[in-house]
Amino acid sequence: MAGRAGLSVEETRAYEIMDATTLRAWLGADEALRSLLGGSPQQWRVREVGDGNLNLVFLVDSSHGALCVKQALPYVRAAGPKWAMPAQRAFFEHAYYAAVAPHVGARIPRIHRFDPQRYCIVMECLAPHIILRRGLMAGQRYPASAAHIGEYIARASFFTSDWAGRFERRFDGIALFAANHPLVRITVDLVFTDPYCASARNRHTSPQLDATVAALRADAALKAGAARFGQKFITAPQALIHGDLHSGSVMVTDADTRVIDPEFAFYGPIGFDLGAYFGNLLLSWYSQPGHATAANDRRAYRDWILEQARELWLSFRACFGTLLETHAAGDAFPRAMFGRAEDAASLAAERARFLDSLFQDMLGFAACKMIRRIVGFAHVADFETIADAALRARCERGALAMARALLTRPQDFATLDAVLAQVPRMELA
Amino acid sequence: MAGRAGLSVEETRAYEIMDATTLRAWLGADEALRSLLGGSPQQWRVREVGDGNLNLVFLVDSSHGALCVKQALPYVRAAGPKWAMPAQRAFFEHAYYAAVAPHVGARIPRIHRFDPQRYCIVMECLAPHIILRRGLMAGQRYPASAAHIGEYIARASFFTSDWAGRFERRFDGIALFAANHPLVRITVDLVFTDPYCASARNRHTSPQLDATVAALRADAALKAGAARFGQKFITAPQALIHGDLHSGSVMVTDADTRVIDPEFAFYGPIGFDLGAYFGNLLLSWYSQPGHATAANDRRAYRDWILEQARELWLSFRACFGTLLETHAAGDAFPRAMFGRAEDAASLAAERARFLDSLFQDMLGFAACKMIRRIVGFAHVADFETIADAALRARCERGALAMARALLTRPQDFATLDAVLAQVPRMELA
Repeated sequence: MAGRAGLSVEETRAYEIMDATTLRAWLGADEALRSLLGGSPQQWRVREVGDGNLNLVFLVDSSHGALCVKQALPYVRAAGPKWAMPAQRAFFEHAYYAAVAPHVGARIPRIHRFDPQRYCIVMECLAPHIILRRGLMAGQRYPASAAHIGEYIARASFFTSDWAGRFERRFDGIALFAANHPLVRITVDLVFTDPYCASARNRHTSPQLDATVAALRADAALKAGAARFGQKFITAPQALIHGDLHSGSVMVTDADTRVIDPEFAFYGPIGFDLGAYFGNLLLSWYSQPGHATAANDRRAYRDWILEQARELWLSFRACFGTLLETHAAGDAFPRAMFGRAEDAASLAAERARFLDSLFQDMLGFAACKMIRRIVGFAHVADFETIADAALRARCERGALAMARALLTRPQDFATLDAVLAQVPRMELA
Repeated sequence: MAGRAGLSVEETRAYEIMDATTLRAWLGADEALRSLLGGSPQQWRVREVGDGNLNLVFLVDSSHGALCVKQALPYVRAAGPKWAMPAQRAFFEHAYYAAVAPHVGARIPRIHRFDPQRYCIVMECLAPHIILRRGLMAGQRYPASAAHIGEYIARASFFTSDWAGRFERRFDGIALFAANHPLVRITVDLVFTDPYCASARNRHTSPQLDATVAALRADAALKAGAARFGQKFITAPQALIHGDLHSGSVMVTDADTRVIDPEFAFYGPIGFDLGAYFGNLLLSWYSQPGHATAANDRRAYRDWILEQARELWLSFRACFGTLLETHAAGDAFPRAMFGRAEDAASLAAERARFLDSLFQDMLGFAACKMIRRIVGFAHVADFETIADAALRARCERGALAMARALLTRPQDFATLDAVLAQVPRMELA
């Protein structure tokens, strides 16, 4: 990865940042894609719509059809070319989609083509889907979304874990995705380290949160908790994980839910994906006063969000639990060892113990994800769009208090009810 | 790994099982090795001395010097060509030596040459060293050995873990050693699965232990404990581990200690290496009545063995603890997060907690290693050389009882004293 902007010399020479003209020419040269869009490339409408931190995203449509093209830039888009970031992440994004596709059905977009030279993935254009985070900010309800994601995480992680298969297959996957370490490094630094240090990349609502943030960085017990989960993040390759499964990586309609943007994928702890989604639901909950209007105080909507957090865990647990009973054929607790009728209770207890460990991991990782979005580099629109800094700080302070409780008093959160009951109390603290 | 005897077609064509004649010619063609041995190759004495389960081991000596040549066979030597086993394990053995050499000094043999085509490693001939297991069977004391191994495991694991360095280096290592999965599979099957099932590869002292073994395979709690450690073995890549560090992989003199045979190396739990050594010391303890004579009842010797088990853990803990204070510069609990004076106590508590987790891992893995040596495929000479089957069974029964206690009642073994006090009690049970 030497050379300009994170690319080797050969890669820099080959790299071509796409625009409407080059994109039309490239897609037009592909028979299948051309016929999918129909008509002549000059008639296609091309819009660059990427609003994430890393990539270009083009929507290409015609009167006949539509496509989405995602191109990985050789740097962090949100930071500019000075922050190099290997475009090879597109390879891992595609590899993740390919690995989970047999197990998760239509929860991911259909992939039409991957071009490793251009670091481009051509996929189904999701319409009329919107980013879930935007929907949550607008106070919209997506009744199936949390259960969809709970089942998605259950299926994607179960089938890439040793519960389902032989460890050799997972070792092959670990070896492949180990090379995605530049993306893992982002998480190690921006989620588990920088928020707890003085770092030029950090920011927070200032001066309103200055004292709160100073106290957080002086809280040795909190930092120990975060560092434990940071260590676990890189030493627990339980399954292939998405690695960035927050509400900005999910697109929804009333009935449909899709997972996108898996370029952070690697073999890690299952609780990290659960925690990303769970934590971002809690962030949404704490941000709601910032989006209240005279016509909608968001009180009932907040209750609905907490129910979504509940639904995420319950649907995950039910789906993973069912798969353990119907599809456990791997090296974890080998069936051959537990074949007697008398073994059933012991095996069931071990499986429950494993699921309980994922629950605790979900809470710890959720807390780390909440903290980094308020005091670290990359913030979330849920809070950023609250113009009144004093109001924003009040919302953020509640979220930080909840995250701190989860990291420093895990013994108080043995059950889902205990967690959800605590959420409103923390706002008053 | 398709084709005959675990080799691909190209590899089979190239594979050449060495004998005295081909070995003389090959070593003689290497200027450096030839001058090390001196004289003419025809004058060199060549002996094949391998007594392990997998490889050929040649000692080559002359009046001027000596060398050891280890060749990996494309099958399990103890089982014959029908049990294929990729000879590429020699590559990983050499890679392990190269990775730990900067950290462990003279605790490994000097490596002169590695030939990836012949799967041969040419190394220092260790003399007058003997295999530690043979020394323990003979009732010999090696005062420095346990402390040497404790420090060895501490240094080899610390410096290949995230405590010492950035996770990217470990991820690169994980990716490399992931391809050593045929050796990891042996451990998964022979240590963590087969002993707890009906398997044609198993054997035990029969009929004396028939009822004990039947009870073990019906003990759901014991099997759950073993399966928990089996799962941990393949999902906890804390550091580069030796993977087979029992008393047959250690060569000793009164003052020197060397670690050999690391072909099972991969990134795994540190406690697995500790447990292999600890467990084999306990096996030696339980086997001693089988080696007692009128002149030496081995009582005092047994006490010495227990002191070695103590010394192993204490020296490991002291060395790893010191390294944490002097060389912790990696991604685990990043220094930047714990830079304030007030953070010191919290960080120290987390490090102690990590070391405590290694102690518990050591005990669990030790128990699994003890059980497999008595009821599984590969037994140990400590017991196998006891001709009187009834006496042998009594010795083995005590070891099994201790292992069972370690796996099913871990809460009773929070301290080293508690473990060591229990060892003699189990013999009476």
